Amino acid sequence: MPGIIEFIERKRDGFAHTAEELAEFVTLVRDGAIPDYQISAWLMAVFLKGLTEPELVAFTDALASSGEMVRFLKTPSDGGGTFLTVDKHSTGGVGDKTTLICAPIAASCGLRVAKLSGRGLGFTGGTVDKLESIPGMNMRLSTDQFLKQADEIGIALSGHSLALAPAEGKFYALRDVTGTVPSLPLISSSIVSKKIAGGADAFVFDVKCGSGAFMRSIEDAKRLAEALVNLSRALGKKSSYLVTDMEQPLGEWIGNAVEVIEAIEVLSGRGPQDTRELSLALASRMLVFGGAARDDESALDAARKALDGGDALRKFASMIHAQGGASVCGDPSILPRAGKKRVIEAPRSGVVERMDARAAGVAVRALGGGRIRKDDHVDVSVGLRILKKVGDRADKGEPLIEIYYNDEGLFNGAKTYIGQISSVSDTAKPDARPLILRAL
Amino acid sequence: MPGIIEFIERKRDGFAHTAEELAEFVTLVRDGAIPDYQISAWLMAVFLKGLTEPELVAFTDALASSGEMVRFLKTPSDGGGTFLTVDKHSTGGVGDKTTLICAPIAASCGLRVAKLSGRGLGFTGGTVDKLESIPGMNMRLSTDQFLKQADEIGIALSGHSLALAPAEGKFYALRDVTGTVPSLPLISSSIVSKKIAGGADAFVFDVKCGSGAFMRSIEDAKRLAEALVNLSRALGKKSSYLVTDMEQPLGEWIGNAVEVIEAIEVLSGRGPQDTRELSLALASRMLVFGGAARDDESALDAARKALDGGDALRKFASMIHAQGGASVCGDPSILPRAGKKRVIEAPRSGVVERMDARAAGVAVRALGGGRIRKDDHVDVSVGLRILKKVGDRADKGEPLIEIYYNDEGLFNGAKTYIGQISSVSDTAKPDARPLILRAL
Repeated sequence: MPGIIEFIERKRDGFAHTAEELAEFVTLVRDGAIPDYQISAWLMAVFLKGLTEPELVAFTDALASSGEMVRFLKTPSDGGGTFLTVDKHSTGGVGDKTTLICAPIAASCGLRVAKLSGRGLGFTGGTVDKLESIPGMNMRLSTDQFLKQADEIGIALSGHSLALAPAEGKFYALRDVTGTVPSLPLISSSIVSKKIAGGADAFVFDVKCGSGAFMRSIEDAKRLAEALVNLSRALGKKSSYLVTDMEQPLGEWIGNAVEVIEAIEVLSGRGPQDTRELSLALASRMLVFGGAARDDESALDAARKALDGGDALRKFASMIHAQGGASVCGDPSILPRAGKKRVIEAPRSGVVERMDARAAGVAVRALGGGRIRKDDHVDVSVGLRILKKVGDRADKGEPLIEIYYNDEGLFNGAKTYIGQISSVSDTAKPDARPLILRAL
Repeated sequence: MPGIIEFIERKRDGFAHTAEELAEFVTLVRDGAIPDYQISAWLMAVFLKGLTEPELVAFTDALASSGEMVRFLKTPSDGGGTFLTVDKHSTGGVGDKTTLICAPIAASCGLRVAKLSGRGLGFTGGTVDKLESIPGMNMRLSTDQFLKQADEIGIALSGHSLALAPAEGKFYALRDVTGTVPSLPLISSSIVSKKIAGGADAFVFDVKCGSGAFMRSIEDAKRLAEALVNLSRALGKKSSYLVTDMEQPLGEWIGNAVEVIEAIEVLSGRGPQDTRELSLALASRMLVFGGAARDDESALDAARKALDGGDALRKFASMIHAQGGASVCGDPSILPRAGKKRVIEAPRSGVVERMDARAAGVAVRALGGGRIRKDDHVDVSVGLRILKKVGDRADKGEPLIEIYYNDEGLFNGAKTYIGQISSVSDTAKPDARPLILRAL
């Protein structure tokens, strides 16, 4: 690598770095050998000048291998397993509990599903917080526990370990405070490097699109989805994507324990249609890309059977049991519930014209169910229930939203956001956009 | 001002800041209230997205007023003086001692010349180091001393005070380590803000161009010269420029004490033609822009008379006296001289085809006559004498360069650079490019 200033200048002037330079740079950043002000100048240069395809691949590879890398014990390549290990990643939405459903479906169809998840941050929820609402549930599996469980029962969901892609964490923290977050190469390298370090053979990306997502337009979401898939493939991973709607929250419940309840409902063959549909779509992609199904049709068929026949629910229950959680699948009332309830009623008769998923996410966070800073405490019992979605008819006075909360002060702070979630119009037509907007 | 992240994002996305935002940003930077990594992200965004004309003016104004601002006691606007106060600024060259000549010329023609100079850094010399080679000379005048002397004898040359444009110093230090130095708006705001804080009414810029200068091409030098003049004028200052050659060093001597000797030679009506020519050109511009001459022709006439009649030398002597320096104008042998001498001879008969002014500057620094870090000690007695310039004929064995030094170890370290200064060709034609390349 040349001197660090020359390295920054090369990117500033639009030249491409070599793979060796990038690897050395990432190592130096991880080791704290480069001051933040030089890293941030480079990040801004990357934001404005981009990374070439080979640079992006080399940078992501370097981030992924900057710390511990998960390696599964038995893989098809060494003759030790039938199917591939599959990971599913969502770019973050509101009410999105599909991991809790599609992962058990895929595992019950024979895939090994091993997924390291994040905690909720900002207005989006996190799988780790949701599962931690289950009394006794251990979401801090050691790497050994994680590997062993994925191998023995085919499914393990755990929190991120700091040891994975530590350099990525440093870049991410700086991007957050230097206006360099929304850059396609920086976003995609951030996501894919952590997936690569997580050790799976195939990834299914669910890129959310709309008011409750990082990407607002379908074009931007599709661009990110394609970047994620291309980058994963260039690094030797099978990969596909769905671009899905996040103008309105997914399903009926938003929160933590309440989303586990909705997941159990769907795993029991009931629950909201949209949550079911997206979970099946994601599960069938996992089956195809993991090698457990021949094509989309037979994959969807197998996923439906696993869901409706109860196999997926049993797989979910066995995972919870393996991680020390209480038997919530048999008795969801074990889950914590908030003590107070309010109802938002339709101010007029008409049709729900639009919903603001972001406002719903912010409202739950304001009730205590999310976090702004990483070390904020989360009240897993609070949540919202969305009774009317876009296109639904509502008569004046009919309930639109139920709010479950514990603290009147927090409720008052959340009121503004709650008021922005739904708007009912007497002229709008019942017409919602499709749930799955693009697919590869 | 919006939040700092939003501020960075605005520049990143190519939007213009308001004058108020920039003023607040500069104040926060001066006060250490913004972390370096955010400043450097903004600097890289400015490097790549530029500043609009109004932004540049507002930013420079904010830098200039971020600390103490010199205000002269008697000005034409309050009826207290005949002429304007004029400052002359060179972008830095090798062997450039013109300040020591043009400033006394202009002052002896009635202008008030008040100039705050830098120390040498990198391969270029600095007026402060040169004048400090005069025994007893005080180059750290207080603001009061500086103002009083400029007022009483019409001339004061002193070192920069840290109190002037302190925010500029912070930006400059960060630019130096983040690959954001060669940006036209950042360079011009840096130069002009310090000039503005220095309090003069009119500026003459000498933008150097060639191997021994920051700007290598005439186009780039002209672009910088125009940026400096436009920015100064937008901030209410009269201003003009020369773009001058720095492919070869200026004059005969390069060093510190040796350049004072050459200046005294020129002030005595002798000395090298190029030093004389450029000093007269700069002085006459100062006279025109300071209001002491009607036009270029009468200005040049007055400048020549001041030089050849001895008025300029007397003004220089009175300045040295006022600042406590020994009477070097009467007896230059008071100045320190290095004890050892070597001569570089022409390796063949022919014509000096080209010179590398930068190599000459680096060689003097290597002999101990310059500094790499701000706190390096400078040996003001060492130097080079250039006996043959571009286009001069030299017979084999004839002296090309004399080296005056004190330390054999340093001489050995300087040898490589000394070897690169001149090249003699037996096919080249005697032909040097003009000294003054562009003028406004």
